[in-house]
Amino acid sequence: MRILIDGHGGDHAPDVVIEAMKLVLAKADAPTLGIVGRPDVIQPVLERHDLTDRVELVESEDIIEMCDAPALAVRRKRKSSIHVGARAVRDGEWDALVSAGNTGALMAISKLVMKTIPGIDRPAIAAMIPSTHGGTLLLDIGANVDCSSNHLIQFGVMGSCYRQAVCGEESPRVGMLNIGTEDIKGTDVVKYAAQQLAKTNLNFIGNVEGTDIFTGAVDVVVCDGFVGNIALKTMEGIVRHVLGQMKHELQSSPRAKAGAWLAMPALKNLKEALHPSEHNGAPLMGLNGVVVKSHGSADAYAFSCAIDAACVEVKADLKSAIANAMNNMTLPT
Amino acid sequence: MRILIDGHGGDHAPDVVIEAMKLVLAKADAPTLGIVGRPDVIQPVLERHDLTDRVELVESEDIIEMCDAPALAVRRKRKSSIHVGARAVRDGEWDALVSAGNTGALMAISKLVMKTIPGIDRPAIAAMIPSTHGGTLLLDIGANVDCSSNHLIQFGVMGSCYRQAVCGEESPRVGMLNIGTEDIKGTDVVKYAAQQLAKTNLNFIGNVEGTDIFTGAVDVVVCDGFVGNIALKTMEGIVRHVLGQMKHELQSSPRAKAGAWLAMPALKNLKEALHPSEHNGAPLMGLNGVVVKSHGSADAYAFSCAIDAACVEVKADLKSAIANAMNNMTLPT
Repeated sequence: MRILIDGHGGDHAPDVVIEAMKLVLAKADAPTLGIVGRPDVIQPVLERHDLTDRVELVESEDIIEMCDAPALAVRRKRKSSIHVGARAVRDGEWDALVSAGNTGALMAISKLVMKTIPGIDRPAIAAMIPSTHGGTLLLDIGANVDCSSNHLIQFGVMGSCYRQAVCGEESPRVGMLNIGTEDIKGTDVVKYAAQQLAKTNLNFIGNVEGTDIFTGAVDVVVCDGFVGNIALKTMEGIVRHVLGQMKHELQSSPRAKAGAWLAMPALKNLKEALHPSEHNGAPLMGLNGVVVKSHGSADAYAFSCAIDAACVEVKADLKSAIANAMNNMTLPT
Repeated sequence: MRILIDGHGGDHAPDVVIEAMKLVLAKADAPTLGIVGRPDVIQPVLERHDLTDRVELVESEDIIEMCDAPALAVRRKRKSSIHVGARAVRDGEWDALVSAGNTGALMAISKLVMKTIPGIDRPAIAAMIPSTHGGTLLLDIGANVDCSSNHLIQFGVMGSCYRQAVCGEESPRVGMLNIGTEDIKGTDVVKYAAQQLAKTNLNFIGNVEGTDIFTGAVDVVVCDGFVGNIALKTMEGIVRHVLGQMKHELQSSPRAKAGAWLAMPALKNLKEALHPSEHNGAPLMGLNGVVVKSHGSADAYAFSCAIDAACVEVKADLKSAIANAMNNMTLPT
């Protein structure tokens, strides 16, 4: 297995990226790792970490910044690490690309270079949300702000394939994110998509609400990228707010402080359960190739989890699973 | 001040409703309270609580159930407590209607009976979300699943008026909920609404993200009812999840249990700050009359806060504030 890492993506690249690679290489069944980037930037860091023998350097020239507009980055920075990396995966030289860079650019370039799986109009980005019983896969979380019913149906298929192929679940429950569980609720686009999903061979359980994401009542939650992104960032915001309020309350009296000291290990577990770095690594689904997006602010451990996620996805052959599912499905045209 | 309460709305009506009225009547500057409902159901409860002299009973015949489709409830249950109550407010017999009943029916009937303020196409429901610095007003939270840019602009105006008239803020900051702060982000509807809001005399601060709802960086967050409802329910879901996880972690060892016991008062404050019953009472804005929606599962105290919210809104004369603002504003047609 050969995994290529974008050396220029993320807030702390390339150092954190290379520390993450070290964590992965320390494991027994480590994949072959490569790093794509500018030699003048990457080579010295590889040397400093004594990794020149263990990590292959794939040379690129341009760097896409976080603030670059995706459409411009696609056209004007064809020698960027993301472009070079995506082409290397397309050409079979590497099995997957992992990047903590500009999400929009990563998506647009991957789509342009790798194309989508037959039957899939648009790739989607998915996030695993911690829930009471493991996790709930939410997609799309921001790649597609305007979606047709067919796009939503395709997201349902891809999400279901992911839970089957990657998580090993036989019959994942797929739900449509809506403002109520009744069939009459929601926009026409969502209503039609739900009607059609009910006719497929997916285990479609109907509409679900925002509250259901966390209860373990559903495995895959489908929505457009506008709604998904706002749901995701609202979660991030309120978790930060809750933890901030908790800290404030636990410092409000000597008694509370003593309690907080005793409960510290438990509260640390809570914090980790809410911001699980193992869940870092959002798959870009629907492409003819494996691309995994790491959070831009990921630390070395979290980034290494994104590399692991790429390995798991390559092993599971998600691409073929989605292609098969689309092939065997009669979908509205 | 004369506030009319729907005797049939909510999970625990009419008992909780009447207990809430008792709480309100116990205060020094209590408004005159009325209850609208079926005499055979309401009269015995009023007698039991010894309230027949203090609470006026307005008679209605039908009851709208939580599961009734709003469109049908509007047409077929014209003698319902909500219909009778809305007409009584329209005719000036009462200053406001408070109900914990079917939200869709309450909105549809109020709109049909009271009509909207000139310049407002559609009423919106707003929720006050607890944030680091008090609260953030989010609207719409579910009345309008499909919105045009003009609807969103009107929500911005109404939200700003609410913060001015009801909360006494001079120049409330209005933001557009979007998937990024850059102007290029989001759907065409959202982009155009943001452009136009920037041209008005509102203190429009541009796009805001889901995370910004909780930081106190913005006072009014504008979105369509689909997005707002999903954001709101996602918050509810994750807060419940976090509190559940916290309980679980704090019971995981004797040390954690001891810490939890010491920190109990602080943790109770945290819980109350996250589910503040004082924030119960969502205004239906843009109507020619004051209508406040209580959470269906509100207890007596929370329901009494919804009655208080109605009093505050009547006193603030929000309706005139919105009418004036719309009158003084040049909006795209």
